[in-house]
Amino acid sequence: MDYLMGFSDTVKALEEVLPKALRIALFLGVLTLIQTIAQVFKRHYSRLIKLFAGKHDPPHPDTSSPTQRNLSRSFRAADHVNDNKHHLLLAATGSVATIKIPNIVGALAKYDNVSIIILLTESSCNFLQGQSGEQPSLAQIANMKNVDGIYRDEDEWRKPWVRGDSILHIELRRWADLMVIAPLSANCLAKMAQGLSDNLVMSVIRAWDATGMLDPARPGVALPYSGKKGIMVAPAMNTAMWHHPLTAEHMKRLNSDWAISNGGWIEVLDPIQKEIACGDTGAGGMHEWKSIVASIERRLRLLSTKEGLK
Amino acid sequence: MDYLMGFSDTVKALEEVLPKALRIALFLGVLTLIQTIAQVFKRHYSRLIKLFAGKHDPPHPDTSSPTQRNLSRSFRAADHVNDNKHHLLLAATGSVATIKIPNIVGALAKYDNVSIIILLTESSCNFLQGQSGEQPSLAQIANMKNVDGIYRDEDEWRKPWVRGDSILHIELRRWADLMVIAPLSANCLAKMAQGLSDNLVMSVIRAWDATGMLDPARPGVALPYSGKKGIMVAPAMNTAMWHHPLTAEHMKRLNSDWAISNGGWIEVLDPIQKEIACGDTGAGGMHEWKSIVASIERRLRLLSTKEGLK
Amino acid sequence: MDYLMGFSDTVKALEEVLPKALRIALFLGVLTLIQTIAQVFKRHYSRLIKLFAGKHDPPHPDTSSPTQRNLSRSFRAADHVNDNKHHLLLAATGSVATIKIPNIVGALAKYDNVSIIILLTESSCNFLQGQSGEQPSLAQIANMKNVDGIYRDEDEWRKPWVRGDSILHIELRRWADLMVIAPLSANCLAKMAQGLSDNLVMSVIRAWDATGMLDPARPGVALPYSGKKGIMVAPAMNTAMWHHPLTAEHMKRLNSDWAISNGGWIEVLDPIQKEIACGDTGAGGMHEWKSIVASIERRLRLLSTKEGLK
Repeated sequence: MDYLMGFSDTVKALEEVLPKALRIALFLGVLTLIQTIAQVFKRHYSRLIKLFAGKHDPPHPDTSSPTQRNLSRSFRAADHVNDNKHHLLLAATGSVATIKIPNIVGALAKYDNVSIIILLTESSCNFLQGQSGEQPSLAQIANMKNVDGIYRDEDEWRKPWVRGDSILHIELRRWADLMVIAPLSANCLAKMAQGLSDNLVMSVIRAWDATGMLDPARPGVALPYSGKKGIMVAPAMNTAMWHHPLTAEHMKRLNSDWAISNGGWIEVLDPIQKEIACGDTGAGGMHEWKSIVASIERRLRLLSTKEGLK
Repeated sequence: MDYLMGFSDTVKALEEVLPKALRIALFLGVLTLIQTIAQVFKRHYSRLIKLFAGKHDPPHPDTSSPTQRNLSRSFRAADHVNDNKHHLLLAATGSVATIKIPNIVGALAKYDNVSIIILLTESSCNFLQGQSGEQPSLAQIANMKNVDGIYRDEDEWRKPWVRGDSILHIELRRWADLMVIAPLSANCLAKMAQGLSDNLVMSVIRAWDATGMLDPARPGVALPYSGKKGIMVAPAMNTAMWHHPLTAEHMKRLNSDWAISNGGWIEVLDPIQKEIACGDTGAGGMHEWKSIVASIERRLRLLSTKEGLK
Repeated sequence: MDYLMGFSDTVKALEEVLPKALRIALFLGVLTLIQTIAQVFKRHYSRLIKLFAGKHDPPHPDTSSPTQRNLSRSFRAADHVNDNKHHLLLAATGSVATIKIPNIVGALAKYDNVSIIILLTESSCNFLQGQSGEQPSLAQIANMKNVDGIYRDEDEWRKPWVRGDSILHIELRRWADLMVIAPLSANCLAKMAQGLSDNLVMSVIRAWDATGMLDPARPGVALPYSGKKGIMVAPAMNTAMWHHPLTAEHMKRLNSDWAISNGGWIEVLDPIQKEIACGDTGAGGMHEWKSIVASIERRLRLLSTKEGLK
């Protein structure tokens, strides 16, 4: 009897509790399952997710890595010696004029013999997150014609270095026929003039072959400056920054012994007078992007080759 | 019979297992629910939580954002032109003397016609986390009288920039009548003397209108230095740092053409001799904070206006 | 009847559903439990986990903190005045030659009267993650003989500073008889020559007692440079970096008034010509590590004491 009563009571209680309890338990179980799957997925496919989420999630910086194709094998200049292309290393630093990078790349799309690798400082990435029509995301830029890679600081030591590994900023310097820094911010101008190399862009600049004797010319490719490689810079900054006395000092470094015209390796595209992004009117605005493109075309002799192709 | 036996066995097993299993399942279910709610809450209200947790959680840097009121709409100098207040941009860099910021702000609380915006480098924030009575948290400082904003590096590009947006370090320069950097660390002194602008404080300094011609005077507000804006700096560093030959070089930059007395825009409040925080005794300690307050009062002509108000 | 039918139906349904549902609920419950335990464990024992995981997880930087013994109480030079040991502050900056640090430490293991504290910049840590036989992890290096601490930037303000606390970069300078920076990267050479102190290594350098008058000699310990402390640097960089005109400028600073030979506090161990890690052949490679060890032995007079011990 005790047994039966116990059984009967239990059954009653079960009848009331079970349907609800089961539903709750199942619901929570499924919830946990989804959560667990989501976490596993997030951990292993975070890059993938970001790539898809990129455009719909403008408030966060675009951290997708459109250079994956390059990272499958680490980048080596030697692999590209015979690609019969002009190698343009196009860098942007922390100025709003960074938004002209897509224009410059777009204007070079008409050439089939140009390979472009883009370098971005962390500050400059703020301006290319797909937040407006003129500011595509890095993933979008990576898909533009001639763009063969986009590198950021995080790419430098992504894989723990061991003996025999290449060093990214050295390989990029070797690869480049011409480096163009547009825009060159006030901060990076100061770093350049004083030899600081605390990010990928500045490391390539600091490791530039100022003597012109280290990197052999590639067969059949004319180098931009009378047979020498070089760095073309387009400073861009607020008018007050431009008029600060330190700017003149830093510019003087670039325009002295270091200048192409004095046997050096640097060509300066002077800022222009205009109303700049911050609202001030005056000097300091970046050289017009179309003029920058024209300078690139002239230095890489693209127009003549283009005509030659016709 | 088979059916009945199966049923009977199942019922028995159920009778033993169910109560425990149900309790466990329910318990874990509730646990998951709480966890999930906590995570959702954490993600969406993290700022809120930090604000409340700020004081009770001293070991972690105070990352609350007491400038929320300003961020509801991005900061524009133009919105404050006619507030009939003296605009004091008070910055601190990575020296322990940062703990004098609350004293300076507190001493200016007696004036009704002063608006203070505080700028902090990431290093300086270490010293204001509410870890002691003389080191209130940023949230507490934000509630002090006359403090109309506290900005850090993370505020610069919080919202992805699009054409038409203001640029924080430019707006802050425009807004300020007087910028005071107290303390100016050895590192930031070096950056200032050499034009590096890799954080918000240094960007305002680099974007300062050295010519004095860009920013129009505000109606009815006397500018501190014979009708010009200016930057007042109070270097503070370890005695050995102060005696390092580079310090003299950097100080010479600030005291030469750049000095107010030579027609420039910088006033230096020299360090004093005392036992400093690190235990060394000698030069390098920050100018007494009361003297800094007196200098601010004199430059902004607060005493005369105070008397004028009576 | 209704009751019985309801009961009968429920029992049937239960018989089918329950075994599976229970198993699922239990499984998910256990899963949640494990997950919860793992998270709690992860939060509270993260350092412990990393320490164990260090060697098996080479792709992630080794963030274990092998200096825990020092952190139990904050580091004070005063606690080590009478340890009858030579104090060697051995720093590495962001060059691949950082992998020679274990060799240098290993070669000094034969001395019982040497105490070594290692300082690493964040860049240099990339090269010591246990990713190869010649690149042990920091945890492994911390266990080498004579190593009494390894410090990184994160150790500087780990505990929120309050009045009375010591300041790490000042205590390390006081503690050291000799500081050796091997390798000194191009970037840190620039920072050193220009007084930037934005990390722990550069802060110790900037806070060095250039006058030689601040820190009292320890009883019975001969200081390396005619009774003075000093900094020995071994620059290391890519050949192109070495030939960049800025390098000569920066080296000139170190070799002028600052040089030991001119009454200063710096001794330079010149780079050598060899094939360096990046593949270029030429100058810029770090001084041979065995020669660096020999210089340390000579400056700290280890050989004579060693012979004296025999």
